[in-house]
Amino acid sequence: MKTRDKIIQASITLFNEQGERNVTTNHIAAHLGISPGNLYYHFRNKEDIILSIYEEYASNMLIDAFPTVKPDVKPLDAIIIYMDTVFQVISKYRFFYSNLPVLLAKSPSLREKYVDVQKLISERVSMLLLSLKAAGMMTFDESELPDIVSILRLINTFWLSFYQTQNMNDIDDSVFYEGVLKILVIIRPYMTESARSEFLEAQHMYRQRYKDALEAA
Amino acid sequence: MKTRDKIIQASITLFNEQGERNVTTNHIAAHLGISPGNLYYHFRNKEDIILSIYEEYASNMLIDAFPTVKPDVKPLDAIIIYMDTVFQVISKYRFFYSNLPVLLAKSPSLREKYVDVQKLISERVSMLLLSLKAAGMMTFDESELPDIVSILRLINTFWLSFYQTQNMNDIDDSVFYEGVLKILVIIRPYMTESARSEFLEAQHMYRQRYKDALEAA
Repeated sequence: MKTRDKIIQASITLFNEQGERNVTTNHIAAHLGISPGNLYYHFRNKEDIILSIYEEYASNMLIDAFPTVKPDVKPLDAIIIYMDTVFQVISKYRFFYSNLPVLLAKSPSLREKYVDVQKLISERVSMLLLSLKAAGMMTFDESELPDIVSILRLINTFWLSFYQTQNMNDIDDSVFYEGVLKILVIIRPYMTESARSEFLEAQHMYRQRYKDALEAA
Repeated sequence: MKTRDKIIQASITLFNEQGERNVTTNHIAAHLGISPGNLYYHFRNKEDIILSIYEEYASNMLIDAFPTVKPDVKPLDAIIIYMDTVFQVISKYRFFYSNLPVLLAKSPSLREKYVDVQKLISERVSMLLLSLKAAGMMTFDESELPDIVSILRLINTFWLSFYQTQNMNDIDDSVFYEGVLKILVIIRPYMTESARSEFLEAQHMYRQRYKDALEAA
């Protein structure tokens, strides 16, 4: 692995474990056994590292999270693949979500990138929901779509923070499955009668995964 | 106003304007024209100030936000009074919400108090929703109630953060009305046919308030 990548991976680990606020570039250099000068050769400052982490995050999110809606992928499966990936990505970059408004307020270039990526994500979530509607599995008025998408994104973005405000436990997979179950509660009223059994099956699967993860933790 | 209260009010203002992270006890003392020693006579450190602010917040929230459900208060009015107060309280203490997971992770006594207060709030929101159900205005399975309450609290708690991640604008009243409108989107599928006109009226009122606040800003 190149030094630049090592710095990024070590920063993600340290930020997640100790909180971004408590980690300096000197900590990161010491953790890797490199000189601060070597680190500064690759990154001007901590903000610069966070920006690069976000770029990695954004490409993970946009490439992995959105399965193309194809005739051979069931729409509900598509939304499940999406939720799985979203919550995995949030798990990997969780320091970012514990501290989002503060990080964005400090770095205009990070905010700019963040807003662009979120717009793309919103468009893709809208397309996913519209494909569920086209398949006769969801029913909603076109005018409701922006609100539903915005609520789903709010839950995705802040589920981990919300959990952390209420629990001292370490974050394990059960936390993410609990988040997916909340998303299913939001979309349940919009599912049609014909999608009901497929929906209940997905809900049952996540409840089981949630229980298994709780027991394994 | 006593010095102790002046310190609390000045801290709320400075934290909201400049971000809690960027404000030290020295800044607060200088802002009030008092000596750091005088401030330390009242508060051991910044965490201690934040804890006292949270106590003020909690009593505002619990006393003001929850209208007793009485025969002469319409249930939907009760929920509207609740939402108005919640969003006013969030506006007043917004530094707290921009940075919640980090603040709680730093202060175990703050977290303890926060968790207690949130439990009380959840119980009261549950009672509000059950009173809407008893009045024939909402329909939900008793088993769904904890999830619905938890989603409503997530939206209340993180709406402001979510808004701030997407907008650079100053926070004005329109932001809070937009939050109330999102809450109405969440509860809409659970409203009964007989509550429909009252619900649409409330939604219309908040859309109008939202527009008015946008124009005034």
